[in-house]
Order: sequence, then structure tokens, then C-alpha cells
Amino acid sequence: MSYDFSEMIDRRHTNSVKWDVKDNELPMWVADMDFRTAPAIVDAIKNKADAGIFGYEEVPEAYFEAVQHWYATEHNWAPNTDWMRFVTGVVPAISSAVRRVSHLGDNVLVQAPVYNIFYNSIVNNGRHILANDLHFHDGNYEVDWADLEAKLADPLTTLMILCNPHNPVGKVWQPDELRRLADLALANHVTVFSDEIHGDITDAGHGYYPFASVSDAAANNSITAVSPSKTFNVAALHAATLIIPNKFLRDSVDRGINSEELAEPNAFAIPGTIAAYTQGAEWVHELNATITANKQTLTAFIEKNLPDLHVIKGHATYLVWIDCRDVTHDTQALCDVIRQTTGLFITAGAVYGGDGHDFVRINVACPAERLQDGLNRLAQGIHTFEQK
Amino acid sequence: MSYDFSEMIDRRHTNSVKWDVKDNELPMWVADMDFRTAPAIVDAIKNKADAGIFGYEEVPEAYFEAVQHWYATEHNWAPNTDWMRFVTGVVPAISSAVRRVSHLGDNVLVQAPVYNIFYNSIVNNGRHILANDLHFHDGNYEVDWADLEAKLADPLTTLMILCNPHNPVGKVWQPDELRRLADLALANHVTVFSDEIHGDITDAGHGYYPFASVSDAAANNSITAVSPSKTFNVAALHAATLIIPNKFLRDSVDRGINSEELAEPNAFAIPGTIAAYTQGAEWVHELNATITANKQTLTAFIEKNLPDLHVIKGHATYLVWIDCRDVTHDTQALCDVIRQTTGLFITAGAVYGGDGHDFVRINVACPAERLQDGLNRLAQGIHTFEQK
Repeated sequence: MSYDFSEMIDRRHTNSVKWDVKDNELPMWVADMDFRTAPAIVDAIKNKADAGIFGYEEVPEAYFEAVQHWYATEHNWAPNTDWMRFVTGVVPAISSAVRRVSHLGDNVLVQAPVYNIFYNSIVNNGRHILANDLHFHDGNYEVDWADLEAKLADPLTTLMILCNPHNPVGKVWQPDELRRLADLALANHVTVFSDEIHGDITDAGHGYYPFASVSDAAANNSITAVSPSKTFNVAALHAATLIIPNKFLRDSVDRGINSEELAEPNAFAIPGTIAAYTQGAEWVHELNATITANKQTLTAFIEKNLPDLHVIKGHATYLVWIDCRDVTHDTQALCDVIRQTTGLFITAGAVYGGDGHDFVRINVACPAERLQDGLNRLAQGIHTFEQK
Repeated sequence: MSYDFSEMIDRRHTNSVKWDVKDNELPMWVADMDFRTAPAIVDAIKNKADAGIFGYEEVPEAYFEAVQHWYATEHNWAPNTDWMRFVTGVVPAISSAVRRVSHLGDNVLVQAPVYNIFYNSIVNNGRHILANDLHFHDGNYEVDWADLEAKLADPLTTLMILCNPHNPVGKVWQPDELRRLADLALANHVTVFSDEIHGDITDAGHGYYPFASVSDAAANNSITAVSPSKTFNVAALHAATLIIPNKFLRDSVDRGINSEELAEPNAFAIPGTIAAYTQGAEWVHELNATITANKQTLTAFIEKNLPDLHVIKGHATYLVWIDCRDVTHDTQALCDVIRQTTGLFITAGAVYGGDGHDFVRINVACPAERLQDGLNRLAQGIHTFEQK
């Protein structure tokens, strides 16, 4: 390892949303890692700071070339740079696309349980959530294809938000699944917004598949959002990229993000992202090894100490989805007890919809020492809950 | 002078929107200064960069206290911190308020000539521009009160965007004018959005008056937007603050900026703004002295060399509004000739509406040496145009 993923950094009182907790509490909830980012990013930001002038910033071609380089070298896909648009974040871009691509009162399809903020982007804009719930059996999630096809065929369904790979269940969608989905969406005139923010965080040997790379049907009918945000722990860099091969769709979305002031970068978004995508590969590979090890530690601990819990085997994201139905069908109550009695703050799954109420989501992107603290608290909390 | 406002900094190839010009061109257009910002801001950004973790950032109370401190010490007004909301920029906040406070098809009132982006925020959201054109006579702009009252009384008029102080005419609105305007707006149930982004840039002895400070009618019926953006040349810091004394209005606008993802700061917005507002006063006072001197230089140069041009005497902003009607009523054609023959890039006034087609706007926030270059080019360009 060239980089240190073991340092116990005190993040309290640093304006961190994750760490805005009581003194005795341990946050393992929101998708934010307790690791320092890649040094090249810090250097790029400091270089920009030294220039000392932070007037209106534009996006140079070098930015798009860096995105292309990253996807070519990490994910075997080299999207054209002219398909790309800078945007200040994936979630703002989703909201903008909801407004731009669908109409008031339309259905926007999601696959629950799924990242809860998708729901905000839909309902805050006066659209309806249409959930094609993932089918859970034998410890695995799969697409309910018949249900998906029926819901895509509804004339009011005009947009689908795909989570690729999937948060919170950690699943890497395979090319054949994505192709099948792309064909169904195209046949039903439903545009696909593919949120690929977690795509870089995968176990060794389990790379993800960019939706637009799997077929022409996928490429020509989709908006893909990528970002260094999760990969490099730079949510507050406010940088993301939309990749839209279809010119008509791209021009329409471009109009939306410009009208809504989402297309202008802050002073550090461009140099930070270029540094990440051109100098950050080794850091990410070591990060992924660390996260894989943490997931193995968590899984072994739970198998040994908490036999009522079942870890869902996903190969993507640093968020672990754990089936708690043998303990309770109301994991919010469980999480409340865990937090109150041990200080461990994890996410109850109900917010993600679908069968989420049976699950909890735990963020394992932290030093092994902190993870062990969290696991001990988890065991204590589960035992306390079960004894009640 | 403790700070250096004379350094000729080369900003080409730095992703600067202002300096994305040809090699022989001199940009004096967009509101972006050619000075390095206050050193305390650079230090705060570098300190934050050194921390190396840029996860989700929240807004601490210290941020709002810094805003309060600045307005109390610089502008004799100490707004309550609980009236404040962080927002990523003034323009995004205007657009959000247009969507939140007015309805589709409503009129939004502005006072033309005025900052052209106001028009985008109105028309991009399906509202109509209603212009209460400023009345120009004897080289001065004044409010046309009868016209204002009639237009506020239109039931379709629900929002007014006030530019205080006024860009591009550089006028500092006086307390009696603001009070009269506040009373009319309240009587007609028109909410006032007061854009005060230029408020810190005034000539010595000519401080500006925050709209919400002039009366209860103004405070209770207004949204004020402030930012270090123009003052410290940090547009790409992406930091601004809304100040809304009325709880009902505040809660409504707060809902809007949160739904539209405008309420989350990037990693550098908070430390940068706190540094500006707590350590930047002396830098701003010296900046203002520099700008005042530049305006005097420009005015003297034009009086001596370009008698057909007439500088409008404003005491605010670093943007000078120049009456060119004795040369042409189509300053776009004039600016085209100036740029083509001399490389000087200034703004033709037509984009601001009203009588703007008779005017040009010149940005004088640059070292005296660069200003002189610009003035020489201006004289050359005017003479070339007049000889055609």
C-alpha cells in the first residue's frame, strides 16, 4: 500500500454532515468516507488557491479529456468528449432531468429499494414515483422483468432512474441485464437516467458496466451521470459529468442545467477532478482493496457473532446491506435502539422503499480500527434489542 | 496601502471566463476583477485543503455570525442570524425565488436598464418581464414612481427584483427611495427580492443601504441576497446568503433552495466566506480606494479625449456606465468596431434593456496600468467608429 487507509482522523467540528453527532456516537450512515482523499487532489486545489483569483470559471477541454481517460482506462469505455457536460452534482442533475425530460404528473420509474434522494427529485417536481421493486430471494436481488415491462409500458412513464451499480443493495448490473433493460426502455419511449456515481467502488475482479456502453439502444436513449464524489470522497467538490450520446437529448438537458445554474463550476471542481481522473487510479485501487477487506471483516464478524443477520453479497459500493428480518421487520426501531444504547449511527432501510424496512445499511469506508468499534457496537445493540 | 492592486497578473489559460479572449484582446466586460483576492481567503482555502477530506459539508453558526459581523461593522445593520440561509449563488437564488414566490405566467418587475441575467431567471421560468424603466435626465437615473405604482398594482405582478445598489448604472439607492418602494410593494402584495451583491463596492463616503434595514415594511416583505462574490472577486467560491426576516417567506424560500439543491456548500465556500467577512475589511477599503481612483482616471480621460462620451456619476460598483448617444444609438455596433479594431472587449448596453442601447458598460477593476491600456484602446475605437 502506497497510501494510508488506517489513520484515525478526528472529523468532529469540521462542518462534516456525517460527523455532526454526539461525543459518544459513531457515524456509519451517509455515503462519506473517513479517509483523506488522494494527495494529487489536495495539491491541485492548493495550486489553484495559490493563484488567488476565483472569478467566473469555465470548463476546459482538458476536463472532458480527463473524464474520457478515466473511463477508458478504468472501465474500458471511452465516451466522446463532446457527449459530456459539466454539472455541479449528480442529484441536482437528476432533479433537472426530471424537470426537463418528463412532464408534470408523469411517472418516474425506480427500482426499490433504492437511494432515497431519487424520491425527492421525483416528488419535489410534481412527478409520481413508480417502483419496479427488486425481487429478493436466496439472499440476492433481481429485476422483476414482467413488472418492469408493464410499468415502462404505462404511457405516463417517461423517465427511469437507474442506479448502476445499485445503492443500497451493492449489486453490479451485468451487461445482459442492462441490454435487456435498454431495449425495454427504448421500445416504450422511456428515457433512462443512469446514476453511476458508485461505479468506481467495486471488489477486485468485479468492475461495473457503464449503461451507455452496453448497446446502441442504451447509448442513444440515456443520460449517464458520473462523478469523483464517492470514489475520492469529494462530495463537497461539487463536480459531476453528464454523458449523453444522443444529440437531441443532450441539447435538451444542456438547456435545463444552464437555466438552473448547474453548469458553472466552482474554482476547485475542475482542477480537483482533473487531478483525480489523471493521477488517482492507484489510490482508488488501494481504496477498493481496503473496502473489500472491510466487507470481509464485517461479514465474518456477523456470521460468527450475529447469526440472525444476513449480509447481502454485493460487489459494489462501500455500503453494506444487511437483512435483519430474523430480528425485526421494523429496522427503524432497531436502529433507534442501537444508536441510543451504543451510539452507533447506521441507516434504517425503510427510507429506500421496497423491502427496505427489513434491512439496515452500514458504511464501511473507514479505518479497520473504527470498523471494529462499529461492529462491537452493532453486536451490543442487536443483543440489547433482542433482549427487550 | 497594505495590499497590492497594481500587479499585472496574466489570467490567460486559467479557465477564466473573462479572459477567454484572443491574444491581442483586453477584456473589460464581465463583473470579475483582475486583482488577487484577500490573502486571508487564500489561507482559509489552503487550510481546508490540507484537511484532505471533502465529504458532505454543513453550514456552521460561525458562518452566519460572520455575515452578521460584516453587515454590522460595514453597513450599520446587524441582521439576526436565524434570518439567514446559505445558498450557492445569488443568481440561482433569484431563479429559485421566482419559482417559489411567483406563479407561472405572473409578472416579475425589474427596473431597466438592469443586470441582464435577471431576465433569464424570469423568462426561463415562464414568467413575464415587466419593466419599470428608470428615468434618465440630466445625466442621472431616477425611479419613475407613477409607472412603478401602476405596474406593482397589476394583479399579475407578484415579485420585484431590486438591484441595490444598481448594476449597471452604479446608483446607490437612498433610504427614502427604498422606503417609498417598500411601502408600494407591500401595499400591492408584491414581494421584493433585493440583490445586494454589489453593496460593498462604493466610493468613500457613499456606503449603501440594505433594503431590509430601511423599514419594517421592507424587512417583512423581502428576500435579500448578499455574497462575498463581487466584493472579494470570488464568484467561483459559490457562496451567498439569503436574509429573510419574515418567517413565512423564509420557510417557503428555504423549501425551494433545498428542493433545488442550492443550499449545500462546497468544501471551500464556508471557510472562504468566514475569512472574507472577519478578516477582509481592510482589503475591501483599499480595493474601494483603488476603484474610486480608477473611476476618476477614466472620467478625466474621457472628458479630455472623448467629449462625445458622458460618464454617468454612480457611487457604487466597479462597472462604469457611459452614455454614447452622441456617437450612436446602437452601441452594439460600436462595441463590435472597438473590439475588432483595438481588441478592447466591453459590454454594449442593450442587453440590460431600457435605454441601454445608448450606453456601454466598462469594468475598471484592474491595475491602473491595464486601465490606461483600455482607455487608449477605447479612444482609438471611438475615433475609428466616428470616422466611418
